[in-house]
Amino acid sequence: MLSEFSLIDRYFARRARTLTRRAALGIGDDCALIAPPPGEMLAVSTDMLVEGRHFLPDVDPHALGHKTLAVNLSDLAAMGAAPLCFTLALALPAPRADWLDAFSAGLFELAERHGCELVGGDTTAGPLNLCVTVFGSVPAARALRRDAARPGDDVWVSGTPGDARAGLGLLRGEWTTNDAAADAALRRALERPEPRVALGLALRGLAHAALDVSDGLAGDLLHILERSRVGALIDADAPPKSPALAKLPRDVQRRCALAGGDDYELCFTAPAAQRAALEAAAQQARVRVTRIGTIVPLDPADPARAAPSIAWRDASGAPLDLTLQGFDHFSDHFHAD
Amino acid sequence: MLSEFSLIDRYFARRARTLTRRAALGIGDDCALIAPPPGEMLAVSTDMLVEGRHFLPDVDPHALGHKTLAVNLSDLAAMGAAPLCFTLALALPAPRADWLDAFSAGLFELAERHGCELVGGDTTAGPLNLCVTVFGSVPAARALRRDAARPGDDVWVSGTPGDARAGLGLLRGEWTTNDAAADAALRRALERPEPRVALGLALRGLAHAALDVSDGLAGDLLHILERSRVGALIDADAPPKSPALAKLPRDVQRRCALAGGDDYELCFTAPAAQRAALEAAAQQARVRVTRIGTIVPLDPADPARAAPSIAWRDASGAPLDLTLQGFDHFSDHFHAD
Repeated sequence: MLSEFSLIDRYFARRARTLTRRAALGIGDDCALIAPPPGEMLAVSTDMLVEGRHFLPDVDPHALGHKTLAVNLSDLAAMGAAPLCFTLALALPAPRADWLDAFSAGLFELAERHGCELVGGDTTAGPLNLCVTVFGSVPAARALRRDAARPGDDVWVSGTPGDARAGLGLLRGEWTTNDAAADAALRRALERPEPRVALGLALRGLAHAALDVSDGLAGDLLHILERSRVGALIDADAPPKSPALAKLPRDVQRRCALAGGDDYELCFTAPAAQRAALEAAAQQARVRVTRIGTIVPLDPADPARAAPSIAWRDASGAPLDLTLQGFDHFSDHFHAD
Repeated sequence: MLSEFSLIDRYFARRARTLTRRAALGIGDDCALIAPPPGEMLAVSTDMLVEGRHFLPDVDPHALGHKTLAVNLSDLAAMGAAPLCFTLALALPAPRADWLDAFSAGLFELAERHGCELVGGDTTAGPLNLCVTVFGSVPAARALRRDAARPGDDVWVSGTPGDARAGLGLLRGEWTTNDAAADAALRRALERPEPRVALGLALRGLAHAALDVSDGLAGDLLHILERSRVGALIDADAPPKSPALAKLPRDVQRRCALAGGDDYELCFTAPAAQRAALEAAAQQARVRVTRIGTIVPLDPADPARAAPSIAWRDASGAPLDLTLQGFDHFSDHFHAD
């Protein structure tokens, strides 16, 4: 009575058993049973990835398995939560053993690295669709929320944002660095983002607000500003450029860094008094972090500062009029409709 | 910078705020923050519904919203867990306001009835796909697991299984009852299954093993037998037939009741000493329950009873040779490939 897709269920269940047990009851019952450590909360996030919108049809399935979990672990990192476990639901048009082997290898390699157990899921026939729900744990009072930025906070970003968008541009023929190693680095940033889990944990108690940059730094920072009811002054050229991104024209560099999505770096705010502690924490997490600006209060009397928004500055501090529309995130470029 | 799908996110977030708060932090951050009550575990389940496989393209969107959450609440019921909250990820080919209004109304009406808060989600363009992850709470020692059936247990089923499969047969033109009211009742069983949440809670401390019948009674009971390493003697005609199902030919009735999926009734095992307590508990939960057989030990010396399997009996107790293959569950009939 077993259908092809029941067999796939078993295929994932078998591999799940190779992971460290984190749940009281894992795959095989109507529900998994899980609990956060005493005194902590469960942090929960769901992301759905669709062919043509979040990845190209010819994507390497090993990279896709990695990215499917990575984008979810990135949400835990942005909350300062430690990974615990995840569920996976996937619709597949026609199961192919080589595709499933590579996809699950990419998925489980990342899961293992973060001690994140697969505790349940669902497989079905249908147009390719991958939906992960991830669970982490964090003491409620130490969670990095979007609504916690305060005037006077520094604004920070991890890594070298823009690489993923530059990698997408390569695949779409928008540009090339004319350097195979640089092209490969940019493409890798797009296809194998590294969730900043260690950094997120290190930011507990140091940072105020945080989120992960999935739709572009400018658009995502705005979420913090809106939820915290503050504004920001940002140095448009402060985000560091990777050597690979630096090979592209300067206007492309800037647009990739400020409005390119899919980087999964962390953007966070923290009091100036924490600068040294943050640099040390980031070093321990082996991630570069860079100050790019300051949180400012809203000013109801000034139309330009009455609502949460970003005021851009150049390196000299002079105001800059930036138009970033139409260049925001990956997914806007791959409508399936 | 807001895309059409960010607006849909907001649309669901607005409705979510009308629900009773169950999470410490709900929609709007990188993660929701939730915790089970002290001393309890979180029960977690994920189901993905795909057009053409789990529902027909012309399904009433209000019914689809109901069913999307109902099949997940049913997993909580099967575990004896109390609903807490859920996440929703959906891919939509082209958002239409009237469709979203009806879908979300069906979804939120059921959520409200069960005090189940929407705490997160994801919306994207893509072929229609609905993925819910649901969270409930249950004391670990009282969870109704699949591996807990014991020889001597009665086997029970709730409701009148087979109605949903009979309703599918109507839609597919396989048969008709020639009675508009009966046809409507069968179709309603298919499209608006009622998750047996109250019954699942009432079974705590009374039942040993339980699961919900999504793929057909015969196939699903086998999951209990396999996980518990036992066999079962089942009276093939014991599951009660609804008045609507009783209007169909007798062989159709039996196949619908034993091998038809999508009923979301509970199948459970319990010691004979609990019969009166179970009847009373079911009455309080306003659900009919019926004894349909007995759990038996495996017998390595008897090839017919060496492995977990169902031995079918007729009403007189005589062995019955049933072939149910090729009639199992709804989803087998709607391959998208």
